[in-house]
Amino acid sequence: MGKNLFEKIISSHFVSGSVQPGSEVGIRIDQTLTQDSLGAMAYLQFESLGVEKVKTELSVSYVDHLMFQPGSENADVHRYLESVADKYGIVFSKPGNGICHQVHLERFSQPGKTLIGGDSHTVTCGAAGMLAIGVGGLDVALAMGGAPLYILSPKVIKVNLIGSIKEWSSAKDIILEILKLLTSKGNVGTALEYTGPGIQNLTVPERATICNMGAELGVTTSIFPSDEMTKRFFIAQGREKDWQELLADPDATYAKEITIDLSQIEPNIALPHSPDHVCTVKEMEGKPVNQVLIGSCTNSSYQDLMTVAAMLKGRKIHPSVSLGIVPGSRQVLSMITQSGALYDIIASGARILEAGCGFCVGQGQAPQTGGVSVRTNNRNFEGRSGTKDAQVFLVSPATAAATALSGKITDPRDLLLNYPQICLPEKYDIDDSMILYPSNTAEIFRSAAIGTPPFNTPMPTELKSRVAIKVSDMINTDDIIPGGSAMNYRSNIPKSCEFIFKFIDPLFPQYCKENKEAGVASVIVAGISYGQGSSREHAALCPMYMGVRVVAAKSFERIHRDNLINFGILPLVFVNDEDYERIEKDDELFIDDIYNVIHEPRIQVSNLTKNYSFTTVNNLTMRQCEIILAGGKLNHATQK
Amino acid sequence: MGKNLFEKIISSHFVSGSVQPGSEVGIRIDQTLTQDSLGAMAYLQFESLGVEKVKTELSVSYVDHLMFQPGSENADVHRYLESVADKYGIVFSKPGNGICHQVHLERFSQPGKTLIGGDSHTVTCGAAGMLAIGVGGLDVALAMGGAPLYILSPKVIKVNLIGSIKEWSSAKDIILEILKLLTSKGNVGTALEYTGPGIQNLTVPERATICNMGAELGVTTSIFPSDEMTKRFFIAQGREKDWQELLADPDATYAKEITIDLSQIEPNIALPHSPDHVCTVKEMEGKPVNQVLIGSCTNSSYQDLMTVAAMLKGRKIHPSVSLGIVPGSRQVLSMITQSGALYDIIASGARILEAGCGFCVGQGQAPQTGGVSVRTNNRNFEGRSGTKDAQVFLVSPATAAATALSGKITDPRDLLLNYPQICLPEKYDIDDSMILYPSNTAEIFRSAAIGTPPFNTPMPTELKSRVAIKVSDMINTDDIIPGGSAMNYRSNIPKSCEFIFKFIDPLFPQYCKENKEAGVASVIVAGISYGQGSSREHAALCPMYMGVRVVAAKSFERIHRDNLINFGILPLVFVNDEDYERIEKDDELFIDDIYNVIHEPRIQVSNLTKNYSFTTVNNLTMRQCEIILAGGKLNHATQK
Repeated sequence: MGKNLFEKIISSHFVSGSVQPGSEVGIRIDQTLTQDSLGAMAYLQFESLGVEKVKTELSVSYVDHLMFQPGSENADVHRYLESVADKYGIVFSKPGNGICHQVHLERFSQPGKTLIGGDSHTVTCGAAGMLAIGVGGLDVALAMGGAPLYILSPKVIKVNLIGSIKEWSSAKDIILEILKLLTSKGNVGTALEYTGPGIQNLTVPERATICNMGAELGVTTSIFPSDEMTKRFFIAQGREKDWQELLADPDATYAKEITIDLSQIEPNIALPHSPDHVCTVKEMEGKPVNQVLIGSCTNSSYQDLMTVAAMLKGRKIHPSVSLGIVPGSRQVLSMITQSGALYDIIASGARILEAGCGFCVGQGQAPQTGGVSVRTNNRNFEGRSGTKDAQVFLVSPATAAATALSGKITDPRDLLLNYPQICLPEKYDIDDSMILYPSNTAEIFRSAAIGTPPFNTPMPTELKSRVAIKVSDMINTDDIIPGGSAMNYRSNIPKSCEFIFKFIDPLFPQYCKENKEAGVASVIVAGISYGQGSSREHAALCPMYMGVRVVAAKSFERIHRDNLINFGILPLVFVNDEDYERIEKDDELFIDDIYNVIHEPRIQVSNLTKNYSFTTVNNLTMRQCEIILAGGKLNHATQK
Repeated sequence: MGKNLFEKIISSHFVSGSVQPGSEVGIRIDQTLTQDSLGAMAYLQFESLGVEKVKTELSVSYVDHLMFQPGSENADVHRYLESVADKYGIVFSKPGNGICHQVHLERFSQPGKTLIGGDSHTVTCGAAGMLAIGVGGLDVALAMGGAPLYILSPKVIKVNLIGSIKEWSSAKDIILEILKLLTSKGNVGTALEYTGPGIQNLTVPERATICNMGAELGVTTSIFPSDEMTKRFFIAQGREKDWQELLADPDATYAKEITIDLSQIEPNIALPHSPDHVCTVKEMEGKPVNQVLIGSCTNSSYQDLMTVAAMLKGRKIHPSVSLGIVPGSRQVLSMITQSGALYDIIASGARILEAGCGFCVGQGQAPQTGGVSVRTNNRNFEGRSGTKDAQVFLVSPATAAATALSGKITDPRDLLLNYPQICLPEKYDIDDSMILYPSNTAEIFRSAAIGTPPFNTPMPTELKSRVAIKVSDMINTDDIIPGGSAMNYRSNIPKSCEFIFKFIDPLFPQYCKENKEAGVASVIVAGISYGQGSSREHAALCPMYMGVRVVAAKSFERIHRDNLINFGILPLVFVNDEDYERIEKDDELFIDDIYNVIHEPRIQVSNLTKNYSFTTVNNLTMRQCEIILAGGKLNHATQK
């Protein structure tokens, strides 16, 4: 029987398990990537494994998040990352070289290879025919140590793209359309494979935009075949040797198929505060805006910024708008500088910000109080911009440029400009001098900003606990542990813990402390789709550090659930939604004989306060049960 | 009798008083400028005056300090500034347009005019033959309301430059030489007038570098004549109509004359932690560095960055160095982009940061713990970089580029490169579209981040007080109220007060509170040269808000002393240094019948705790006495 792309790559990297959807499969990991916000903890964890050198084909450590350096912490993390990379055989991408996903796609992606990254948007490299999966940093650490990645085999959905995209519609509008269709919840355990005649004219950077926001869909991965278009990209990047064809077999089967007619795609816009609140730009037209930001791993390619530059050329942005441009990589910056496009962008009245993640991760450019911000990035969660009551809209680069010119949300077609057809360059500007290859000579740099990875203790035999917080549906990892300035302390766990649920209930850490002092574990109770968004494992690690042993939710998102397990926290799913309604903060919960019941498909939890029991689903694999009982994956890996 | 430049401009702007050195003179102010960190408070103060429209010829409000926008506060301040400018007839320079001093020099400077600015480096425009003086924001507010500026007439020192500067030495090396000679203390009450055959070949941007660091000397102002070289600059800026010749009379007299032979100037470097700790680069050569930063109002002109680009072209910076480039203005950025220089800079491995003050004011780019940072800006006070134990060195752009290439402090001559002789451009790239002219239509934007200006109460008839802190020599305004993240709260005075003396004695605000509760005022006791550095009036305003009524010091710097008076705080100078030694924290001090004794040249202060009296010098003018008794200038101005 023919294989789809997912099955092909899995079978060439198969270690154990089964590709049956829902079954656990272990796969060999060829490449890893990390970024600096979450990376330092991953390398501290890696160091604790006692391995001499990374065992992957390629591991790259990027600096792209913490570029502002308000105090010594950021530069300390950069220097630690640089030194640990040098020592353990990891490639290091210096601050200023660009966003991990953009640079990895340009310089390191390889069709048919497996890539995991400690960042949810690692899926971007699916555009180059890689099996690219965002995971927690601990999984990256273990993969660098040679361990397979264990995932639940997803059901693969064939996304059949037909027709051609119209002028002024773009890849971003396609993925926003898909987000409207599939929403950001309920896609756990699926993977998207893009195919059909419509993909032929989509360049690799356009495919990257589409794969990138697979993270917002919550799918395990997204992938495009490696075809002639892919080959053109690799040739232009001077890496034809890294290219290989990778196509699904003609008789491949899929769990499901959806068809999208690209010729019907209009310029789309995601409304506050979720990337799946999508309508057409036309429907929102005319809303005055304060700020427009163009960049992020979703939309900061050469093609994206050349399109923007062509629209801005010879024109001035609306005086009341602040337009910020954030090139995705040094390659992009250097090419738009050389081509004159940057000059056109500057002349229009834009602010030129450093190549990196910047505004997209709440690192700067917070809008004014109550401000309206139109952005090309991937997430518009409430408060993520740094301004609690800001309204953030997500659009394509063309819509963003049109909006900056007119000062209000604008369909780019309304400006009646000539459509700038930007092609893939024949040859990219190639200069890897900000990428440092390991020489194995550096002393590891450590400072007070570089902590140690916290270990959990094994699960007690009976689990006495108390509910420390009850939250609603679709809580994302920014809600659990915010970005912005909190990010400066990602290597300082006690300090990081001060930020847990800061905007929902800032007393949460105190409740956990009180529970700890009372000798009971803490429980988080949540609604559907708990743990959306960023892969930040601090959303599990910090609660673990504060004594959380159980999260009971209506449903979980994939990466966060894995992170909970990785840190020894039991993720339980309510069988009956009424049990979610019934439970309250401070309820005392009890699970007896957990070393045995953890292997059951259902776990009974006694609510001692209210004197009733409720049933939870427990679909942990045997391996995951072991990890939780050991008190997390780091214990599990180092004690074996 | 012939007049020097200072006397010429004073006499054409004379309102009252005398130009005798040490006498108070009131002068009409033609132009004002503000930056965003200190500007918001100045405009709040201006609003409280009840004036309909600014009465200056030109007032410009720049955004250049708070560009990172980690939360809504910065954008709120920007929007407030934009709206208040529109309403009151003030020109607004948008974020991204550049550093106030650089842009003002380019687009608004005028020989023979008076300019005051709420930023110590306002003196930069002395390069264009302006009388340019850095003052507290309140003085700017009052000048916008039509009030004269009152200063103590300085003694004017003629700085006679002879000879020609050698290849690889630069304007920065000249001013570092002068800092070595005159130091950063003891120059209160003087002004520097540059003249001599050596100035003929110094372009206006080079003269600007020299005037700029007049702020570090602590002089009242620095000025160059407006000559043919000045004319060339104005023609190149498309502003020949704004130019006029302004030369000192041949028989002008000066209080003092110093001669500097430019041909003897070597590449110089200021060592940590003061801009006057100067030696030659040769003497420091070989010290490994972690970071190099090129920019700031001192050294970010087209000529500066073209020099750097020429040195970096075709070369790569040392891999362990992080090199940041911060263009001084949008004009500079756009010109180096168009000329290809930016491409050369990017290709060398540099990070391109947004045009603004950035690292120079502790807004980002803090070095690693214990890091060595080589910078082209003007101040290297301990901790100002954001990293307490960093070592910051100040150099010319050429030395900075050489150091970035070799990874260690390097005399640029050692690289044996061809010397890049960068000339003043024939024509600058002129585009003022990021400068908004007032239309008088905007509603004033206010948010929680925009507070109200605090008023002091009148001086009590007898002054009971207690020493809240005793500090040492050369305390700068960064020590009193830090930059960095504290800057985000400049419009929120209670919050700002939390940061007073944060790195010297963080309990200071608490001591003041206790004193207030005990019904006594607080006193700051200080050594020589108290209040160096930034003009930030928060270093007076916040202590005032906490109940400080007296600062007793061995000596004061000019702007800070004026700020103390502006907020109703009595600046007293110890007659005997031993009295400084004798006094201690918590000593109770008493001044009787202050409404009378304030007019005496000596004031007796009783130390009740130690049971003795000491004598202080009080050289307040009559007007200053009135201001202090009224509880500050805002009371004084609004109650008249």
